Amino acid sequence: MTESQISVLVASPLEVEEVERIRAAFPGRVRVVHEPELIPQPRYVADHSGTRPALGADGLARWRELLREADVLFDFDWYEPAALARNAPNLRWVQATSSGIGEYLRRLGLDASPITFTNCAGIHAIPLAEWVVLGLLYLIKDVPRLRVDQARHHWERYTARSLSGRRVLVVGLGGVGREVARTLAALGVEVWGLRRSDAPAPESVARLVTRSELRTALGSVDALVLACPYTPETHRLIGAAELAALPAGALIVNIARGQVIDETALTAALESGQLGGAALDVFEVEPLPETSRLWDLPNVLISPHSVSTVDRENRLIVDLFIDNLGRFLDGRPLRNVYDRARGY
Amino acid sequence: MTESQISVLVASPLEVEEVERIRAAFPGRVRVVHEPELIPQPRYVADHSGTRPALGADGLARWRELLREADVLFDFDWYEPAALARNAPNLRWVQATSSGIGEYLRRLGLDASPITFTNCAGIHAIPLAEWVVLGLLYLIKDVPRLRVDQARHHWERYTARSLSGRRVLVVGLGGVGREVARTLAALGVEVWGLRRSDAPAPESVARLVTRSELRTALGSVDALVLACPYTPETHRLIGAAELAALPAGALIVNIARGQVIDETALTAALESGQLGGAALDVFEVEPLPETSRLWDLPNVLISPHSVSTVDRENRLIVDLFIDNLGRFLDGRPLRNVYDRARGY
Repeated sequence: MTESQISVLVASPLEVEEVERIRAAFPGRVRVVHEPELIPQPRYVADHSGTRPALGADGLARWRELLREADVLFDFDWYEPAALARNAPNLRWVQATSSGIGEYLRRLGLDASPITFTNCAGIHAIPLAEWVVLGLLYLIKDVPRLRVDQARHHWERYTARSLSGRRVLVVGLGGVGREVARTLAALGVEVWGLRRSDAPAPESVARLVTRSELRTALGSVDALVLACPYTPETHRLIGAAELAALPAGALIVNIARGQVIDETALTAALESGQLGGAALDVFEVEPLPETSRLWDLPNVLISPHSVSTVDRENRLIVDLFIDNLGRFLDGRPLRNVYDRARGY
Repeated sequence: MTESQISVLVASPLEVEEVERIRAAFPGRVRVVHEPELIPQPRYVADHSGTRPALGADGLARWRELLREADVLFDFDWYEPAALARNAPNLRWVQATSSGIGEYLRRLGLDASPITFTNCAGIHAIPLAEWVVLGLLYLIKDVPRLRVDQARHHWERYTARSLSGRRVLVVGLGGVGREVARTLAALGVEVWGLRRSDAPAPESVARLVTRSELRTALGSVDALVLACPYTPETHRLIGAAELAALPAGALIVNIARGQVIDETALTAALESGQLGGAALDVFEVEPLPETSRLWDLPNVLISPHSVSTVDRENRLIVDLFIDNLGRFLDGRPLRNVYDRARGY
C-alpha cells in the first residue's frame, strides 16, 4: 500500500467477480480489502445483510483493524453500525446498497456524523416499476379469484378490467417514481404525480398534484402507488382520512416504506372493502409479524421487502460504485449523496 | 320499415345503451331489432353466449321470423348456428364478437356459405397484452412462492428476476401480437417475432424469425408468447420438440388457441421442470376438464378463456360495428373480414 492509495473495505456480501471489477477499475490508486470470512454470508443472491459469522475475539479485532484503516466502505458495518464514526476514524464515504437509507441513518445517529453517504437510488427503479405493474395487474385482473377457482378445478368465465385507461397517482417522482410513471404511461395509464420539488412534470405524468391537493386528488384516481422516500414529512402520509378519500375499490401499491401508510388504517380499509386490494413490499414492522391480519386478506399480495432484489442487482450497484469511486478519486461530486436537509 | 332500410338483428347479449348507440348512428337507414327476451342472458359483463332462455314454440317461431328478415347479424345465432344460412336467407353479414372465429366457422360449415363474417381483431389487443405482461411477471417474480409463504405467514426474503432485459418470442404479429410486442418492448424486453407474412418488422420487434427458423430461435429466448390465429398451419405448432428446444426454465404464455400447443407435451414439460411456468387462457378442450393435470401445477396460472373479456369490451365492439355498418351502407370494404383462404 502506498501513501496515496485509498483503502476501500467491502463490508457486505459481494461476489468475488464484482470485487475484482472494483480492483481492476483504478489500478494502483485503490486498495480493495475483501475478507469474506469476516463479513456476513448472503442467504440469497444480492442479499446485503446476510447471516453474521461468529467472529470470535480474533476475528472482531481483525475487523476493527480493517475499519480503522478504511477510507471508503462498500455498505455499512453490520456488526456495530451505530459506532461507525468511532470505529472508522478515517472513513469519509459509505456507499450503501439500498435506496432508502434516511430512516436508518437517523435511527443510528449516523445522520450527525461528517461521513458522506451515497444511496442506490436508480438501481432498483426497473424491478420496482415491474412490481408496481405486476401488483396492479394482479389485482385488476383478479388473480386471487383465478387461483381459488384453479385450486377447485373450477372453470367459470368472468369479466376482468383493463389497466389501460385507469388513472394512477404516483407519490414520489425520484428515479423509482419516474420509472413507475413511464412504465404505467406505456401501458395506457393516465399518471398523476405528487412530489416535493416544483420541477416540471416528466413527460409521462399527465398532471402534477401538490401536497395540499392530495386528499382531493385521491378521490379521482383508481390506484395509488407510493414510491417516495420515507422522511418525517412522509411519515403516515396516507392515513385513515386519505384512505377514505379514495374511491371504493381503489388499489394501493407500496414500494416506499411501511411507515408512509398508517398500517392499522390500511388493514381496516382492506377488510371493510373500501380498498379493492393492495400489493405491499414494505411494512411498518419488518419482518411483518406473524400475527398481522394482512397475511390472510385475499386481496393483499405480500412481498417480504424483496422486490428490489434481483439477480443482476450487484452488477448494477458495482457499476454505480465504480463510477462514484472515480469521482471520489478525482474530487468530483458523487452521485446519490444522502441529503441531511431533505432527509433522503 | 321502409324498403331501403336494412334490418340489423342483435343476436347476443348487449346492453340497451349500446343498442341505442347503433340505432342513433344511422337514423332512417337501419332498423335495429333487439328483443332481449329472445336472446341469451349474460352471465357476466361482456358475456356473448350467455344462458339461453327456454323460448317455447312461440318464442322460437318469433326468433326464426326475425332471422328470416335480417340483413345483418350482430353476433352469431347461438340457437341453431349451423343452420344460419338456411334460417336467414337474406343475411349478408355477421359481425362476430370474438377475434378468433376461423375454427368455429369451419366446424359449423359456415365457412362455405356466401355470408361475410367480420371478427373483433384489435378490440381485445389491450387486455390480451396486459395478460401477457401479468403472466410473465407473475412467473418471473415467482408469485406462487410468495403466495405459499403468505398463506404460512412466513417472511423470507428472496431474489427475483427482472423482465427487463429478457428475450421473448411472440408468435403472431396481428393486432394482438403487435400490441404484445409494443408493450413488452416498453418494459425493456427484447422482442422477437414470427409471422406468416413477410411484411417488415414493427418497430418494437428486434428480429423477425421465419417458420423454418422457429426451432433454432426457441433455443435463444426466455419466453414464448402465442398470439397467432388458429389455422391448419398453426395446429400444434408447438409440440414436444419445440418445447424441448426452449432453454430450461423458459416461460410460455398462450392467448391464441389451445390447439396451437400439444397440451400433453406442454403438461409433461411443466411437470418435468423443463419449462419454468405457463400462463394459459386457452386449452385444447374448453372448459378445461376437471381431470386435467394442469390445474394442480404450481407454476401454471389458469384463466378460463376470459382475458379478452373486460368491462368496457362491448363499447369497443359496438364502436367497430358502427364503423363497419357505415361502410356496409356505403358499399365500402368492411374491417376485419374473415378470409377463407387464410383461415382467419
